[in-house]
Amino acid sequence: MNTISHIVESVRAGRPLVHNVSNHVVMNFTANALLACGASPAMVHAIEEVEEFVAISQSLVINIGTLDAPWVTSMLAAAARAQALGKPWVLDPVGVGATRYRRETCAKLLQHRPSVIRGNASEIIALAGGAASSRGVDSTTAANDAIAAAQALAQACGSVVVISGETDIVTDGGRIAPVRGGAAMMTQITGTGCALSAVTGAMVAVTGDFFAAAQTACATFKVAAESARAAAPHGPGTLAAAFLDALYSVGAGEIAARAAQV
Amino acid sequence: MNTISHIVESVRAGRPLVHNVSNHVVMNFTANALLACGASPAMVHAIEEVEEFVAISQSLVINIGTLDAPWVTSMLAAAARAQALGKPWVLDPVGVGATRYRRETCAKLLQHRPSVIRGNASEIIALAGGAASSRGVDSTTAANDAIAAAQALAQACGSVVVISGETDIVTDGGRIAPVRGGAAMMTQITGTGCALSAVTGAMVAVTGDFFAAAQTACATFKVAAESARAAAPHGPGTLAAAFLDALYSVGAGEIAARAAQV
Amino acid sequence: MNTISHIVESVRAGRPLVHNVSNHVVMNFTANALLACGASPAMVHAIEEVEEFVAISQSLVINIGTLDAPWVTSMLAAAARAQALGKPWVLDPVGVGATRYRRETCAKLLQHRPSVIRGNASEIIALAGGAASSRGVDSTTAANDAIAAAQALAQACGSVVVISGETDIVTDGGRIAPVRGGAAMMTQITGTGCALSAVTGAMVAVTGDFFAAAQTACATFKVAAESARAAAPHGPGTLAAAFLDALYSVGAGEIAARAAQV
Repeated sequence: MNTISHIVESVRAGRPLVHNVSNHVVMNFTANALLACGASPAMVHAIEEVEEFVAISQSLVINIGTLDAPWVTSMLAAAARAQALGKPWVLDPVGVGATRYRRETCAKLLQHRPSVIRGNASEIIALAGGAASSRGVDSTTAANDAIAAAQALAQACGSVVVISGETDIVTDGGRIAPVRGGAAMMTQITGTGCALSAVTGAMVAVTGDFFAAAQTACATFKVAAESARAAAPHGPGTLAAAFLDALYSVGAGEIAARAAQV
Repeated sequence: MNTISHIVESVRAGRPLVHNVSNHVVMNFTANALLACGASPAMVHAIEEVEEFVAISQSLVINIGTLDAPWVTSMLAAAARAQALGKPWVLDPVGVGATRYRRETCAKLLQHRPSVIRGNASEIIALAGGAASSRGVDSTTAANDAIAAAQALAQACGSVVVISGETDIVTDGGRIAPVRGGAAMMTQITGTGCALSAVTGAMVAVTGDFFAAAQTACATFKVAAESARAAAPHGPGTLAAAFLDALYSVGAGEIAARAAQV
Repeated sequence: MNTISHIVESVRAGRPLVHNVSNHVVMNFTANALLACGASPAMVHAIEEVEEFVAISQSLVINIGTLDAPWVTSMLAAAARAQALGKPWVLDPVGVGATRYRRETCAKLLQHRPSVIRGNASEIIALAGGAASSRGVDSTTAANDAIAAAQALAQACGSVVVISGETDIVTDGGRIAPVRGGAAMMTQITGTGCALSAVTGAMVAVTGDFFAAAQTACATFKVAAESARAAAPHGPGTLAAAFLDALYSVGAGEIAARAAQV
């Protein structure tokens, strides 16, 4: 079995416990996405238990979508513990360019060296210190325009960086892998990017090859989105349900084939 | 194009950024409703960034459904900033009659003169200072019985007031416009009223005519509910998904025609 | 009409107001499950109003899934008020075995003598003071292995205890009733256990027979899951929507028949 297929099957067989400190809008959808992929999600944020939970989990996902002071305290504690324990963790810098508070919070989180950073083009550019245009939490920049920023960010943090968009781009600062496909209507469902970050958390839980893990997550989403779009052509409401169905049933071989396309 | 059609198309073309300080139960559904209508939703509540986010948004929606002290502080700061900047904002006084804390919070929020207030009959009567019967967050009063309260509230606050129910009533204190239709089973889906408030936030973002904006939102929901009911007759679970599909695809002309019915 | 049918119909006719202090992941799904069963859900957690809301509700459900310090304060206040007023209340000890914070919180909550405790086998064993294996919030123990723990817990707290699993077990410390059926794919939807706890809250609101109320909730879920599985065979996304449809339409007689099976 190739690397990508092996990651998909390892999640399904091993049911890694993925600890999320995530946002209020998407917790239900991302938990369902993780379950559909075979992982075991948990959402735990209290400072009284967040470090203890990192220790029993296989990976951590931090999503700043609806941050506030107590949650930021817990995010930093969780990231620090993950770093200390050598646990893989994923950062989703939702809307980082929109406010000073998000920029400052992400700057602190980056010090704990996320295994993977997943954002849209505007977010990756903002995170790398550039001036990207954004409108709230949605990107106004194409993924290709953020490649240089993603490479710089990957090198600075020792992270794999994913720019998601019409074509996803995965880079470790050196290699660049595009992942093509998907369905445009997916952008009309809230939390699909957040769900991709969460599922990336499942993939990094089962391999030390974070570049391949990120490719696997992106390819899973692209293939599942196409399958869902065919099953639910009428709009984003039924598409969201069909997408979870597709995540549940998509074949490892099809995912691997997609990741191998250039 | 008439006023109503123009509002619908302006949201779809302009993708206004709608800032929500909303409740935990409905954030996902309301974000998806906003996306389906063509708007760009963001949920931002931290006091560290809430005023900065008001400034970059086209409108604000405040929903007190699951309020607590830090959120109330942020709601008040956001409303004050919207008022100071002349940004349109919508208040959803969920369950205002149920507790003293909700009544006091809404009294403070009203001082910042919401552009539109959207509630069920019990909520509107309670907000106007009357004694309405309610059971938790559900109304036990018909919309028609709240018209006098809605008019008084509209005049006192300089707001457009929407009483949603079997027939929605829109008033600015003088004019009264009913919006008819919909589907009874929509009341078996949590957050449909909250989603109507959120979508009203999208409509006020693209026009200074808040009366027409409120009519547009109500008519959109009535037409979409009927379309969804036909597509998903089996129950509220599939109806919710079909409703988002319908919001995504409903025609501007059909919405305008519904708003024009008396 | 037999006891079980009567409970089902009483919820549908009486629309009891069920007060939830619940978790961020499942609030939307549990509110929709309560609505589908005929109840009127409210999610209220602020310390400023939580006790006042207990007083106007017919029952209370406390779910510790995403607890933190302010929420725990409110959970304890709500449980104490429910106990003082003699209102029925349900405890869902999500992931209680995973951290010290959850164990300590549950120990405090148990002092207020919940009417029903609903957990998976790992949670019930942990709550009873035993050493159960768990992985985050998912059980790794079969329901049958937790029966002794459930009986001890029921006797210690004067509660009905439900161990949910492939077969649900209901006990009051003496009687033991299994409820069989359901669909394995339901475990791939987040919050189905939480929704069962919430719906149990609706059932205890209309009867003093908490054992029968718990049987009714379990039987409702088993029958609805089977119906949903037949309607939505493709995966957990469409299954979740079909499950809400099934909760809405399942017959009281069918539920009663299931509860009567041994």
